Amino acid sequence: MRPEEARPRLAALGFDEADTETLAAHFTDAEERGQLSHGLSRIAWLETWETLDTAAKPRRVVAEPAYERWDGNGALGYLTLAAVVEAQVVAPPERLRVVVCSNTFPTGSLGYWVRKLADAGLVALLTATSPRRLPHPSGGVPLTGTNPLAIGIPSSDQPIVADVSMGAVTHGDVLSGKARPEELVPFGGPQAHKAFALATGLQLVVDSLNPADGFGAVLVVVRPEADPVPAFRSLAGGVRLPGDRRR
Amino acid sequence: MRPEEARPRLAALGFDEADTETLAAHFTDAEERGQLSHGLSRIAWLETWETLDTAAKPRRVVAEPAYERWDGNGALGYLTLAAVVEAQVVAPPERLRVVVCSNTFPTGSLGYWVRKLADAGLVALLTATSPRRLPHPSGGVPLTGTNPLAIGIPSSDQPIVADVSMGAVTHGDVLSGKARPEELVPFGGPQAHKAFALATGLQLVVDSLNPADGFGAVLVVVRPEADPVPAFRSLAGGVRLPGDRRR
Repeated sequence: MRPEEARPRLAALGFDEADTETLAAHFTDAEERGQLSHGLSRIAWLETWETLDTAAKPRRVVAEPAYERWDGNGALGYLTLAAVVEAQVVAPPERLRVVVCSNTFPTGSLGYWVRKLADAGLVALLTATSPRRLPHPSGGVPLTGTNPLAIGIPSSDQPIVADVSMGAVTHGDVLSGKARPEELVPFGGPQAHKAFALATGLQLVVDSLNPADGFGAVLVVVRPEADPVPAFRSLAGGVRLPGDRRR
Repeated sequence: MRPEEARPRLAALGFDEADTETLAAHFTDAEERGQLSHGLSRIAWLETWETLDTAAKPRRVVAEPAYERWDGNGALGYLTLAAVVEAQVVAPPERLRVVVCSNTFPTGSLGYWVRKLADAGLVALLTATSPRRLPHPSGGVPLTGTNPLAIGIPSSDQPIVADVSMGAVTHGDVLSGKARPEELVPFGGPQAHKAFALATGLQLVVDSLNPADGFGAVLVVVRPEADPVPAFRSLAGGVRLPGDRRR
C-alpha cells in the first residue's frame, strides 16, 4: 500500500476524520521506522475484519490524580492509546500516574505512544497484552502474548525510546512467511527463559490490574527529576541508541 | 561459608541485630534458590570493603500518598530496600505508589523484595542500577548496569516472581571465574539489541527519577483488581513458572 492510500482507505472503512488521521499517522510512522508489521499493511488487515465498529470511542471510566482507568468501549486499541496519551499530555500528573486500559487491542507499536509522552516531558513505561503466542521455552501451548515493554525517556536533546517485544520474531513475520510458526518463541535462544519470564510478568501485571477479561494495557507516567540522556549519549560516543532512526 | 556463620560474621562487621537478621535472611534465601552470586559469598565480599558504615540507616525523605523517596544515607542498598518493602507492607497504598530510592547499592536479588510485596498482596515492579558493565551489542565501553527487572504478582495460590538481569552472565560469575569478562554482555546472542534496549531504558528510568547522582532503584506497587495466576498456572499445566522453586 502506498502512503497516500492510507487515509482514503481508512475513511472508506467508516472512521471519522480525526480517527483516520490518528490511525494513518501511527501506521505511517511505523512504516518509516522500518517496523513494517505495525505499518500500512495493518489497513489491509483491518479491511478483513468481519465486524469493525468504526464509530466506537474509548471512555475514561476512572479519573483520580494518580490513577486512570480507560475502556476501549469497542474502539480499536490504537484509538484508546491515542486518547490516553493525549489525556496525559493535556493534563500531566503532578508527580505520576498509572493508567490501566481494558478492552484495548490492537495497540500497535508501543514505542510510538511512549515517544509522544517523552516528547511531552514525561518518563513512560507501557506494556500491553495480545493473543497468546509464546510458549514456555520447554514447549507446550502458547502462554503469553509477545507483550512488549516500551520505555520513553525525555531529554533536553533527543528522547530515548526502547520498545522490546519478548518474541524472537513477530506474528506479522509468520503471517508474511518471513518466519516459521515454530520461530515465534521467547527471544534469547539458550536464555529464552529470561524473555519468557518477562513476558509472563508483564502478562500478569496487565491481567492483575485490568478488572475486565480480555486484552489490556498498563501505562506508568512520571515527571522526571533529572536529565540523564545527554551524558548517556556522550558516553555511548555516537552509536545508535534505542529509538534513534537508522542512518 | 556455612549458613550458621552468616549471622556471627555480619555481627562482627558491626551490624546491629535487626540489620544482621535482614542481611542474613536475604543471603540465605538467595543461596537456597540457587542464586549463588547473591548468596552468602556476599558476606566475604562485604568483609573486603575498606569503609562500611554499619550504623547507617536509610531515610524516607518524601512521603506522599502515591509517591515516596528514600535515601540510603550511607546504608547498604539491601537495608534500604528492606525498609522500603516493610514500609509498603505496613502502610500499603490506597491504589498505587511509586518509590524512588537514591544512594541505594547493592540491592541483591530483586526477586526477593518483590516476592515480599506479592506475599503482602501487592503487584510490584522493581529495577535498580549498578556499576556499568554492559556494552552496546556492537562493542565499546560499558554503558549500563545489568539492571534487572523484577515483577511480583500476588495470587490466591502462589505468587509469580520474574527477576531478569539483562546480562548474559553475572558479574559474580566473572569474579568467580565461571565466565569470561567478554561474556558479560546483554543476553540474547543475535538479539542482544533487545536486552540492551531494556537495560538502557531501565537505566534511564532510574537516572531520570532519581534526583541524586549514583545508584538507585525504582519500585512501582499497585493493588490488584484481579487474580489471574491460578488460571495461568492451569493453562501452563504444571511446568515450572518464574519464581517457582526448582524440584
